[in-house]
Formats: sequence, structure tokens, C-alpha cells
Amino acid sequence: MSLIVQKYGGTSVGNVERIHRVAERVERARKEGHHVVVVLSAMSGETDRLLKLAHEMTSAPDERELDMLLSTGERVTIALLAMELRGRGVQAQSFTGRQVGIHTDSAHTKARISRVSADRIKAALSQGTVPVVAGFQGINASSDVTTLGRGGSDLTAVALAAALKADRCIIYTDVDGVYTADPNIVPAARRLDKISYEEMLEMASLGAKVLQSRSVEFAAKYSVPVEVNSSFKEGKGTLVTREDADMEGVMVSGVTGDRNQAKITIVGVPDRPGIAARVFGAVANANIVVDMIIQNVSQASMTDISFTVPKPDLRKAVDLVQLLSQEIGARSVAVTESIAKVSLIGVGMRSHSGVAAKMFEVLSREGVNIMMISTSEIKISCVIEEKYLELAMRTLHTAFGLDRVSAPALG
Amino acid sequence: MSLIVQKYGGTSVGNVERIHRVAERVERARKEGHHVVVVLSAMSGETDRLLKLAHEMTSAPDERELDMLLSTGERVTIALLAMELRGRGVQAQSFTGRQVGIHTDSAHTKARISRVSADRIKAALSQGTVPVVAGFQGINASSDVTTLGRGGSDLTAVALAAALKADRCIIYTDVDGVYTADPNIVPAARRLDKISYEEMLEMASLGAKVLQSRSVEFAAKYSVPVEVNSSFKEGKGTLVTREDADMEGVMVSGVTGDRNQAKITIVGVPDRPGIAARVFGAVANANIVVDMIIQNVSQASMTDISFTVPKPDLRKAVDLVQLLSQEIGARSVAVTESIAKVSLIGVGMRSHSGVAAKMFEVLSREGVNIMMISTSEIKISCVIEEKYLELAMRTLHTAFGLDRVSAPALG
Repeated sequence: MSLIVQKYGGTSVGNVERIHRVAERVERARKEGHHVVVVLSAMSGETDRLLKLAHEMTSAPDERELDMLLSTGERVTIALLAMELRGRGVQAQSFTGRQVGIHTDSAHTKARISRVSADRIKAALSQGTVPVVAGFQGINASSDVTTLGRGGSDLTAVALAAALKADRCIIYTDVDGVYTADPNIVPAARRLDKISYEEMLEMASLGAKVLQSRSVEFAAKYSVPVEVNSSFKEGKGTLVTREDADMEGVMVSGVTGDRNQAKITIVGVPDRPGIAARVFGAVANANIVVDMIIQNVSQASMTDISFTVPKPDLRKAVDLVQLLSQEIGARSVAVTESIAKVSLIGVGMRSHSGVAAKMFEVLSREGVNIMMISTSEIKISCVIEEKYLELAMRTLHTAFGLDRVSAPALG
Repeated sequence: MSLIVQKYGGTSVGNVERIHRVAERVERARKEGHHVVVVLSAMSGETDRLLKLAHEMTSAPDERELDMLLSTGERVTIALLAMELRGRGVQAQSFTGRQVGIHTDSAHTKARISRVSADRIKAALSQGTVPVVAGFQGINASSDVTTLGRGGSDLTAVALAAALKADRCIIYTDVDGVYTADPNIVPAARRLDKISYEEMLEMASLGAKVLQSRSVEFAAKYSVPVEVNSSFKEGKGTLVTREDADMEGVMVSGVTGDRNQAKITIVGVPDRPGIAARVFGAVANANIVVDMIIQNVSQASMTDISFTVPKPDLRKAVDLVQLLSQEIGARSVAVTESIAKVSLIGVGMRSHSGVAAKMFEVLSREGVNIMMISTSEIKISCVIEEKYLELAMRTLHTAFGLDRVSAPALG
């Protein structure tokens, strides 16, 4: 008999019929003899509905009040599932984040978990009860409700799995696992049976929206085996786990694409020490996360500095950089929005050389110009023109041997 | 500077525009120098929407889970109003029932308040903050959310006013006060400036849906002055307060009608001791509240027993009484659904004799037959044929001098 934490996302509890199906799955796991803890998100669309109401009230809603508002969505779904389970004769009880002891700091709307007590869950489990827990929410030291940021229900599930030393944390979602690439862009993409925490983290941070990044960090820290699986069909999912020998045999595990960046270039910057620190210090102070940076070789004591920022922050960043460029005596500021980033990810890169060289060669063969490059131990990213993104992803997917061998299953 | 508890019902916070207007009213009270505590209901329709979801899940939803579900409605409105107030520069903060220390027993969906601490409200007030409190909800000794039953937000407001020794508790609703009769039935009905707790209680229990009964009991017990007023227009409301000499001068304060009762008659009951106790004991055990009872004079050791029950309980009551009538050897059971109860209410009845006689005479002059009569110190009720209810109410209203003297204001 094992202890399983099951987390269901917003689309999996999106209406009454789907909650019935979640109940069936929980009931089945109980009948198979497992202890089950269920973590739920709000019904899909509910968080957006509430946010819309908030912004109809006032232009900049207070964040403590936003948390009070947004935390209601999960309370609805946990109550509905618990009553459904009880109606079927499965002993179940709903619990809020507070009731299961998800303690957080006071950074409303993006709180960080400081401690998980899980006392009431342990008591419920020892009585054979299925605890149905509201994801996404916790409580701070003043006893005020906090929320963990978008995708925070994944974090709740992983944190509870860690606190309870669960055998597995299964994230039920609308896809059946982690793929070598987005199947909408790369039809030959394969589902991975296994992926390491590190690779998953790179995938998540590069825009593969399967698992929230912080939940992967948390899982890695406490070695929680996390399975990503579909709540809509039966079958195997992808296990996110510690790196093993198996994984290192594969050079590249996945290809990701990201259109969410824009490039800013400060042209004609006087090449003096401290200029870069000044620019990026100011940008960081404005809470804008810079992804990639390149600086040209200096010519006649002048240089160009290019960097990428998330598209939603572009206007703010440009305004700031315009001011800075005057202060530092730069010539001008140029903006390119039509860029994209294509990345290869794989723990195998550590032991296989030549991945970067092969990547550049493949892209150049297709006439794709590389504007910026950044590398880490298990990742290589290239910024290219946005229009080439799909082509680049498909070509790299094939070149690195990721294509599915057999024909795709129908349906 | 006085301390005012303002409570707004579901229609008063029914949409974004209306919440803006509530914020205006709160802001005005603050500018006039008052300390303000706001208590809110859920948006009108929200509780029904949630109940519908619950019944779509399962036929008999668990009551603890219902409370988890239903308590979300008020959390939404308090968060929205608090962010709106802060957006206007009024210092405000939302609090749940738990956060303000509304402690209750564990009777889910109809919990009773056991203790009110109000610590966080006191702290907020001392900092000049407007606490915006979720009505209708509390917390039991296990730290589970409870709800106080329909209309429970009134009770929250009165209980907080009592705990805070507030100068006044204003219940803002969709009517501008308590009337001598339902103006939809009696166009000449007048708004009362003042009414005693006792009269208000009789009105409430007889179906005048302005204030929840338990909140009036609570207000009477702790002498909280409660004002009923309109959230949609400016002007005077009705003050519910201790009885005073003024009130006793008036013979009758109001006329109410109630169509919610049905009559059951057990025909041919053997006239032996203990029969009535057996019948009404069984009915009470089935949680059916009997309102009026009459027993005919015995003839040939046989008697008829008639009593009224709430219409929603009629089928259950009839099934039970059919069984009982066989056991006790009664002849038959008859049911009359088309009855109504008309009542006169007034603390003045204590010092004015002849109210009952005059009531019977007025009804008889209109050809209205009286089927049952019950009286209390400040109330006389008659059960009549339902079709005569409006006629009876209007005639009594005029006969007891309650009609408005001046023409009704337009709009």
C-alpha cells in the first residue's frame, strides 16, 4: 500500500461531469489499496473571472485582497469533489491551505512556502479518509490567506508529497506527459518515459507549460518522484525524477521554442568599465528579468550591448534604457520584437561534445541566422528570427534523433 | 464620533456598479467622522449558483462540505469592496468570519454563534482601518468553516455590533424600512419610524423577510439598536429598538400575511388522554414545526384535531399522520392547502383590550370565515381561506388606522 498525492488542474475539474471523473479515479486508487491525497486547482476560467471582477473594481487591486478573492476558486472545487466522493461512499474531507498547514511568507500573490505541517492530513489518512486539499493557497504569520502564484497548485501537491514522504506525486493535466517538443509544432514529437529534474526545470523555464518551475525545484530538493499524466485518458505518463545512467546515454532530450522575448540593443556605448553594471543594475531594480546578453567587440572605444527581456516588460524596459542611454552617452536604442529562442536540452550534453557545433550547422544549413547564443551545462539556446522558429525546431528534432520511430497512434 | 456597523445584503452588492455605490456610502460615513465596520453578504444569486453545483454533484451533499462551498461567496464580495475602498484611498481590509473570531458550534449550515472575539476588528479600528467582514460564516472548535443559515449575515452584523458595543447596526437592504404591511399587498402601507424588538420578531417569524429572526433575538438580548434602511436611496429607515412609551400608544403596529402553512385535520380521534402528546411528539421528532393547533369539543368520545405545518413539510407530515391515525384508531385524515394566516402585531395590545373582538368583527363583515385562531401577548393570528388574504390584510390595515394619511410619494 503506497501513498499517492494526486493533483488535478483547472481543466480536469472544469465542470461537474469532469469532477465526477476525478472522483472515479480517486475511488479506483482507493480500491487498489492506495492512500490518496488529492490537491485541486480552481475550475478553469474561474481565476480569470475573479481577476476580471477585481480589475473592474479598481485599476491596481491590493494584493492581500486579491489573495482573499482568488483563494475562493479552489475552495469551491474541493468542497464539490469531497461531497461527490462522500456521495459515492468514499470517506473524504476537504481542507483549505490553512487547515493543512501550508505556511508561507507574506509576499501576497506570489508567496513562498516556509513550512508544511500537514497535521490534519496525517490524522485524516490514519482514519482512512481521503483529504481533498485546496491548491495554490497558504497562510502567513498574521493568519491571512496567501497564494503561491500561477501554477501554484503543482507546488502545493509537491510540497505535501515531500512533507508526507509520499511514494509518488501525480500531476493530472490535459496532456499525457512531457514531450521531446511541443507536438503542435513538431508532429513527430515523442512522449518521454522519464526526464530528470534538471531537464524539466530547463523545459519549464523555457516555456514548456507542463509543470510550474518552483514545483520542480521543490521536487528536486526533496527527491519527490513526480509523474505527469493525463486526466482524460488512461496510460503511461512521464516520470520526473533523479538523473540516472539511462538518461545520460541520450545526447538531447528535448527541443523547446519561446516567442516571449524581445531584443533591445544599445548602440554606440562608450566602452568604459562599469557601464554594463549600471545598465543591468537599473533593469534588475525595475524587476525586469534579463535572459540573454551579448556585447560586441569594441571598435574605436565604442560597443553595442544587446539583451532580451520578456515581451510584457518591453515597454517598461525601453523607457528605462532610453533614459540610461542618454546618461551614459550612447548613440541610440534599437528594439527587435520578431525574435524567438530555440533551445536543446539534455543532461547527455555533459558527456557528449559537439552538440553546439551540430546545432549551429543544422540551423545554418536551413539558412537560419543566429543572433545570440547562450549555453549552460545541459542546454544550448539560440535567438533567431521568429519566422524560422517552427522550421528550426522541426529540423533540430530530426537531426538529434528525437523523431518518433513508429507512426503516431490515431486519436 | 460613533461606531457604526453597516451590513449590505446580496442585492446591494449584486454587481460591480453596486459595490461602487456601497464604497461611496462607506467613504461618506468615514468622512463624517464615524468609525465603520462593514459586513457583506454574497452577491445575489451566488449562493443559489453554488447550491445548484452541489446538487449536481450528489443528491444529499455533506453539510460540512456545503459550508466550505457556500462560505466562498462572501469572501469574494469582501475582497472586492476592500480593494475598491483602498483604490479610493480609504484604508480598508477584508476579514473572514474566522479572522474576526466568530466562533460557533458545529451544526453545519445552521451553526449558532458561541463567542465573538473581534480582536482583529478592534486592532484595525484603532488604526483607522475599515474592517470589511464576511457575513454568514464562522468557525467551529475544529477550525472548520461553518455557516449561520439563510440571512445569517444579519446575525454577523448584530453580533459584531454587540461585541464592539457599536452605537448602531444599520442593515442596508432593498427596502427602506419596516412597513405596517407588505406594500405589494396593501398599497396604503406606511413605513414605521420605530418598532420594538418583540414586534419585529413577530413580523420576522410571520414572514416579513426584512430581518432574520435570530439576529433580532440577538439584538434584543444585547440591546443593539438596529436600523433597517435602503442601500438604493437616501432617507430615513426604521429603527428596531427597546419598547418605549411611544410605541404603547399605538394599538396595532402591523399586519402580516403568510401563505406558507397548510392544515391537517385528523378526523374522529378517540378522546383519550395522551393522544395529542403522541401525535405532536411524533411530528416534532420528524423536525416538523407545528404552528397552530385546535381540538374540537368532544362528541360521543370522539374529537377532531387540526394543526398547521409549513407547506414544504406537508407531504412528510401527512405520511406520518396517516400512520399515526391508524395506530390511534382515528377515522380519517384531511388536508387543506389553500389556507393563509393573517396577523395583527403590536405591543400596544397589552394595554388595549378589544383588539381580537374588533379583528373578528372586521373579518366577518367582509364575509371571511375564521378557521383557527391563536393569540400571544402582542399578536393575534387567524387562519382563513387563502383567497381572502389580500382583502383581509387591506381591510384590517384600514380598520386599525394604519393607512398612510398623505398620498404616497412618487417613485
